[in-house]
Amino acid sequence: MTLHRVSISTAVEACRVLEKLGYVEAKPRVGYFVRGPMQAQSRVRGVLEKDAHETGQRIDPADYVGVHERISVTLARGLQNPLKVDLAGAVCAPALYPGAALRDNMLRILRARSSLYDSAPRPDGVRKLKEAISRFSVSRGMHVDSDAILVTHGCSEALSLALRAVAGPGDVIAIESPTYFGILQVIESLGLKAIEIPTHPHTGISVDALEFAITHMGSIQAVVCMPSVQNPLGSVMPDAMKAKLAELCEKHDIAVIEDDTYGAFLPSPANSKPVKAWDKSGNVIYCSSLNKSLSPGLRVGWLIGGKWHKKIEMLMYAVSRHREEMSQLVVADFMAGSAFHRHMRRLNALLTQQRTQFVEAILKHFPAGTEVTRPEAGLLVWIRLPGELNADRLFESALCEGIRICPGSIFSNTNKFTDCLRLSYGMPFDARIESALKALARLARET
Amino acid sequence: MTLHRVSISTAVEACRVLEKLGYVEAKPRVGYFVRGPMQAQSRVRGVLEKDAHETGQRIDPADYVGVHERISVTLARGLQNPLKVDLAGAVCAPALYPGAALRDNMLRILRARSSLYDSAPRPDGVRKLKEAISRFSVSRGMHVDSDAILVTHGCSEALSLALRAVAGPGDVIAIESPTYFGILQVIESLGLKAIEIPTHPHTGISVDALEFAITHMGSIQAVVCMPSVQNPLGSVMPDAMKAKLAELCEKHDIAVIEDDTYGAFLPSPANSKPVKAWDKSGNVIYCSSLNKSLSPGLRVGWLIGGKWHKKIEMLMYAVSRHREEMSQLVVADFMAGSAFHRHMRRLNALLTQQRTQFVEAILKHFPAGTEVTRPEAGLLVWIRLPGELNADRLFESALCEGIRICPGSIFSNTNKFTDCLRLSYGMPFDARIESALKALARLARET
Repeated sequence: MTLHRVSISTAVEACRVLEKLGYVEAKPRVGYFVRGPMQAQSRVRGVLEKDAHETGQRIDPADYVGVHERISVTLARGLQNPLKVDLAGAVCAPALYPGAALRDNMLRILRARSSLYDSAPRPDGVRKLKEAISRFSVSRGMHVDSDAILVTHGCSEALSLALRAVAGPGDVIAIESPTYFGILQVIESLGLKAIEIPTHPHTGISVDALEFAITHMGSIQAVVCMPSVQNPLGSVMPDAMKAKLAELCEKHDIAVIEDDTYGAFLPSPANSKPVKAWDKSGNVIYCSSLNKSLSPGLRVGWLIGGKWHKKIEMLMYAVSRHREEMSQLVVADFMAGSAFHRHMRRLNALLTQQRTQFVEAILKHFPAGTEVTRPEAGLLVWIRLPGELNADRLFESALCEGIRICPGSIFSNTNKFTDCLRLSYGMPFDARIESALKALARLARET
Repeated sequence: MTLHRVSISTAVEACRVLEKLGYVEAKPRVGYFVRGPMQAQSRVRGVLEKDAHETGQRIDPADYVGVHERISVTLARGLQNPLKVDLAGAVCAPALYPGAALRDNMLRILRARSSLYDSAPRPDGVRKLKEAISRFSVSRGMHVDSDAILVTHGCSEALSLALRAVAGPGDVIAIESPTYFGILQVIESLGLKAIEIPTHPHTGISVDALEFAITHMGSIQAVVCMPSVQNPLGSVMPDAMKAKLAELCEKHDIAVIEDDTYGAFLPSPANSKPVKAWDKSGNVIYCSSLNKSLSPGLRVGWLIGGKWHKKIEMLMYAVSRHREEMSQLVVADFMAGSAFHRHMRRLNALLTQQRTQFVEAILKHFPAGTEVTRPEAGLLVWIRLPGELNADRLFESALCEGIRICPGSIFSNTNKFTDCLRLSYGMPFDARIESALKALARLARET
């Protein structure tokens, strides 16, 4: 405590972590004692390699993900009260999406046809859309052949297929901490284990911590990360870190599963390339969708499977056969010209303005000591409440006043983020939003 | 051979099966010898309970499914040659589907809207569609609350979700033999093992054989079956057998996963109810889609999850979040009135006529001794070639003449159906179809 100037609870937590890693051992009523490093490593390796059911032991530090119940309860709870203001959904106001243009595209396509759905399209995706995605990829700093792209039912299906291709039940997946709760759900639903890697609000997943985990904690099958505008932190990894991540994982034969859903929100292609741009051997599986950027009602995502392309294609075909053609055509039309880029430019300008107003209001109204991210892009802020304030209780009390937030507890399999919350600034900032933020600030104090 | 009046190959195959079951053992160069029943049972149980990797032994009679390679190669091979006549796809001619009406539905829905996809619909499916499905279920002899229905991306996703809900890697699933190759792919992609249950062209899966397998072969997690118009056989289980199947599985706590994709092809609801209609405890997961009946280009399927509803909902949400609204609304409109029933009546009348012409042509042209099913409904016939004729070779030689068929080998994880093929009579019978059947007959003789 003296050396590092930390509180008693931090010191105890540190000892617990070191115990999990096998570096210290707890002797009841006596304290923590250092163990030999060789012994520590072999213990961790041994535990990791055995099955939890076999040993009857809890597997540390990679855990079976058990957060789903908490996520489900939270999501279901959030639907029970009548809502006045929803700050929980990672989504922009409907008016900010080009819904009218998409409707016009669909009308045009329909008028040119005499019939609909009377034959099955290609299972890998409509060619025109794959070509449009290939061109879009150039703006993200990648050169991708359209044949290397598989169109999926959104980014969730892409992530699920990618994980199924590289790992099987019981395998360990490294994830960001905090991470998007959807990734925790997919990992849990596939019977995988997760190891949480510290992730910084500015620079994203810690490559150093990941390297440490790889070196000291036995086999990790894959890393799932959002290097460009992380959810919930909004962090953007510096290029040097992305290159290092790609190299590290290639060296250790660990698949990188990259979720680039928010990549299109980065205003300039400079310093915004995905990790995939540094991929030399097909070791990075790139997943993305238009769900956040173009339209929340769409289910058009895609992935670039690298060396797992064939396997993922087989898994995708086994699970859901072909995809419907219509929305693929509508999107292909929108992406073919400059409409998508113009839309994103306009959307990003609006979001920048909303972010400034939103963050200022939080700093103005929330209790002193509240920390809030100022992300470079996207539509989410991450807030840490000061002192002992608890965001799960805030979630409950806010719901009673018709305000929905995302409590930090659903972004991790641990209890590290119970004092955090995620808010969306996707709604235009107005008196209604400001009064909701004021109410949250008041409730946080009262909680 | 004398006692049962069977050929030498049948007798040898019978001995092999008995060996797999542990009832006889083979002594090299000597013959097959009967083993004691207790010993047999414990051997089978023991092997089944151990992991294949642990024992280094092949697991019998439930096998790891390894047919995917064969299916993929066959499907890919079928796309290489320019096609003149496709008899492989389980699909009707485009003109037989109400594509124009669906297009008009979509136009009408679009005109009433100013915007498209600018917000996310409910993840469990559009209410209007679920209500339409609930009403449709009555015509299938079931009373299902719309809240018990989950809308999926086609029947493949429904089957995949159902299997994931009830079983995990290494678990044993009983399937029909022959079975739809898509089910083999799903089972293989999930790391499950399959045990093939004899299935009769008239009466469907043998409940006696299933009961034998349950009693003698250790743990079976689920049965996947198509009781109403089986693919590829076209068989329809008698009501008494459906009731027995439901009861048997409930007694032994084995999930029934019922694929009712072709149920709508049964002309009258009498004797056409799905097994789900006999389900007392939520032990049957009902899966269906409109892919074959209404439109091959659609991805609208659904499932009734019974006691696994919550778990399946969670898995579905983790994998693919919500589904697009538009095609659900289009279908809901079509199913709301009498249009769907009128369409099916017309389609079934056409198919009955096509089937008669098709089967007659096969019997007229194919080699003497060829057996062909005369299914009550649907759009598929199953053909067994006489003597030593091989359908894999026929598949190859037919492709060279621009004709695509489905070889029997992809409908099983065993080699039991290499003399069989599946043909679709979904195309109107004309000179082109007749000459294709003539060509097939000639090639079968030459092969």
